[in-house]
Amino acid sequence: VARTAVRSLERALRGDVERTPSALARVARDGSHLVGAPIARVAPRDVADVVALVRWARRNRTPLVARGAGTSLDGESVPRAGSVVVDLSGWNRIREIRPDERWARVEPGVVNRKLQAALERRGWFFPPNPGSWETSTIGGHVGTNASGPRSFRYGPTRDWVRGLDVVLGTGARVRLGSRAPKRSLGPDLLGLLVGSEGTLGLVTEVTVRLAPRPAVRRGLLVPLPPRIALGRLASRLASIRGSGLSALEYLDAECARAVAEDRATGWPVGPALLLLEVEADDAGHAARRVARLTRTLAALGVRGAVREYDDANRLWSQRGESGRVLDERYGERIREDVAVPLPEVDGLLAAIARMAARERVSVPLFGHLGEGSLHPNFVVDPTSRKATRLRAALYAEALRRHGTISGEHGIGAIKAPYVARELGPAAVGLLRAVKAACDPDGILNPGKLYPPPPRAGPRSARSPSAAAGARARRA
Amino acid sequence: VARTAVRSLERALRGDVERTPSALARVARDGSHLVGAPIARVAPRDVADVVALVRWARRNRTPLVARGAGTSLDGESVPRAGSVVVDLSGWNRIREIRPDERWARVEPGVVNRKLQAALERRGWFFPPNPGSWETSTIGGHVGTNASGPRSFRYGPTRDWVRGLDVVLGTGARVRLGSRAPKRSLGPDLLGLLVGSEGTLGLVTEVTVRLAPRPAVRRGLLVPLPPRIALGRLASRLASIRGSGLSALEYLDAECARAVAEDRATGWPVGPALLLLEVEADDAGHAARRVARLTRTLAALGVRGAVREYDDANRLWSQRGESGRVLDERYGERIREDVAVPLPEVDGLLAAIARMAARERVSVPLFGHLGEGSLHPNFVVDPTSRKATRLRAALYAEALRRHGTISGEHGIGAIKAPYVARELGPAAVGLLRAVKAACDPDGILNPGKLYPPPPRAGPRSARSPSAAAGARARRA
Repeated sequence: VARTAVRSLERALRGDVERTPSALARVARDGSHLVGAPIARVAPRDVADVVALVRWARRNRTPLVARGAGTSLDGESVPRAGSVVVDLSGWNRIREIRPDERWARVEPGVVNRKLQAALERRGWFFPPNPGSWETSTIGGHVGTNASGPRSFRYGPTRDWVRGLDVVLGTGARVRLGSRAPKRSLGPDLLGLLVGSEGTLGLVTEVTVRLAPRPAVRRGLLVPLPPRIALGRLASRLASIRGSGLSALEYLDAECARAVAEDRATGWPVGPALLLLEVEADDAGHAARRVARLTRTLAALGVRGAVREYDDANRLWSQRGESGRVLDERYGERIREDVAVPLPEVDGLLAAIARMAARERVSVPLFGHLGEGSLHPNFVVDPTSRKATRLRAALYAEALRRHGTISGEHGIGAIKAPYVARELGPAAVGLLRAVKAACDPDGILNPGKLYPPPPRAGPRSARSPSAAAGARARRA
Repeated sequence: VARTAVRSLERALRGDVERTPSALARVARDGSHLVGAPIARVAPRDVADVVALVRWARRNRTPLVARGAGTSLDGESVPRAGSVVVDLSGWNRIREIRPDERWARVEPGVVNRKLQAALERRGWFFPPNPGSWETSTIGGHVGTNASGPRSFRYGPTRDWVRGLDVVLGTGARVRLGSRAPKRSLGPDLLGLLVGSEGTLGLVTEVTVRLAPRPAVRRGLLVPLPPRIALGRLASRLASIRGSGLSALEYLDAECARAVAEDRATGWPVGPALLLLEVEADDAGHAARRVARLTRTLAALGVRGAVREYDDANRLWSQRGESGRVLDERYGERIREDVAVPLPEVDGLLAAIARMAARERVSVPLFGHLGEGSLHPNFVVDPTSRKATRLRAALYAEALRRHGTISGEHGIGAIKAPYVARELGPAAVGLLRAVKAACDPDGILNPGKLYPPPPRAGPRSARSPSAAAGARARRA
């Protein structure tokens, strides 16, 4: 893109346009190993600016990559070469909280933690709580349909979005959703945008649904005996009537030990752990529910909690240290994310162990066990052939077991080449038709999400390709 | 369509093709006043038959209209003239129930009641429970994104569909969804099909999510004082932490009286009623939750339940009589269905009363108050100008109050002309693009759901138009 085009961008917008190397470096990466090569970072001032930006991008056939906190893990927010990064992290106001209608209207750059604090004060909460919740943005949650421990009970972000204001890749502004608490009006257009990784439109406002905060959230730390069948355990716990179980997390022995040894958590060193959250109406109710869970655990040969937390958030804070602890202990690794039906969990875990042994790498693992969602952390240079082999083997294994290549992180550039294997040609055709309708020039986040088209040249702006990922340099 | 075309259809399919007047009459109507003019009724034998049928329809430019129990209320399953009705009511097997994975796989013609019975025996249930649940099919629920009283807590059908097998209007067979309990893989294609009223594809199998059946479901019958603010009441009840409230229904005084006088329900004659369902872990827990609700009701000036049902299903059976009772007492009427934000409920109720007074008609009304979903039953000849005026006034009022023209029934032929007013041109453009991708020849249920195109001729099979509704004769 010619320098004159960028000058015309500066004239078209009221918001900032930056091109200094330091500004570009700040928006060139996400939580993956990929590094992009943007030509500008823009901070639109308002929706009119976003519309002007899209029009400019269409005229100049220049890719736009929306960005919040940049915590995505598969290159979702890494700009392919020649892109303009649309930085919405400054759009961080909570615009309106309406408990009487159970929703809050927020700008896309609002960080989950900030929203939760505002809601919990009023007796409400927004259930999606991905591991990155203290820094990641609601706009990013929408882009990747993020979830986290509480999706076991509450479902992913898609279930908690009531409305979106979007500027499509055509430049059309559209409000999706309804203020009516229920609606049956044709295909769900809102659900198309959630999880679309910035490839269909730029989200300028999100209306989220609220849940009443439970009076009590008990946390339980449960050591596991060796060789217990985890899938069956999870199925059985999930089937208890009136358990109030709202999260069912797993840390393998390696992860659990790393966290336990890092600081005085008081966690037992040695066994793998279950981390449970139980919601209840009051303390007595919580005690009865915990007793019911404990009986089921006992029947399955599990001794029950070694530690109970009056407030489960303390347990989640300790668990939240695992990312940092693994960073410090293992350094570079691929943070994978697959999910399978519960009866396939144990088979998948065994297969992951075999993959790691074959490649002679460590693989500390944790996961949202209640939803068959596993995060193996293969300790390997992410740019190596070994990493590519491990990824391909992991995805093949997940698909063979009727699972998915992405439980909650998204597709980005890294998994785009594998999408068609999971969806099949007819569904991929539908996806491409939706993409063509929303973004006819292919200017929105090209190279992400969609499988590379069979015969597209890598430079064609009309044909988003996964080449962006392949081209990105290592940091 | 020439008789030779129908003969070629008989050759193309293994399933039955019927053309007798009595067979056609049985599939010409739904729960609305509209009557269609089909040329054949087919009962496909298997998925291969459905594919063959779609290919035949494309070659012959003949509309296909999927049909389950035919209980839709706005003409969703009324065939426009010249259509072939695809009767799936014989596809009524429950194929597999997997409590360990929390799903059941069913044929689209399975009636909700049959599925519930099979699930409840095993300690599970499928939450959507529209008023027609004893006769309507799961395929129909998918077509209209049906909900009902329990969507207050559990959401509509869309939230409970895990997978769909579909033959698109292109003839391509596609499986949507995943057996993985969670997945983040791009735009939600499954959510496009749910609520699409048979206009995108023919559903051949549905995988539904299951919820564990609560141990206790208490029913409460609560008389309301006159002139109480219902929207505020609903907001306050919905905000209670740990109420276990799973349904919050309203019957106005006229409806309540009609039911009470019909048979020995023991209901009070006179006041409007709230019908509540409370879920609980056990009897003691239920008593505490009911006490909490009763305190909130008292603070709002409501005296509490005159009657408690140990099993809420008995309350719902009594309430389920209201349709028959209104049929007997009032006869012909328009069964409307709008929804608004809770703070707009009282204003909408007042406006509805004014509309009815202006047109000098009765309007018994009930609704799913907890979701702002109201069913005014204007007692009027549905084909009259008065009915058209009332409909237009009601939709305008709902939209003015940030609501929807369809809370749960769907759009069909009757509401298609009003869709664009609610969605706006950009969203309608997206809808049309999805339609074009799935059904390029416009053979699937033309005249339903989509707003009539600005300049389409009424006979063009390529341009679904709402003319079907207008053309249908009265029964």
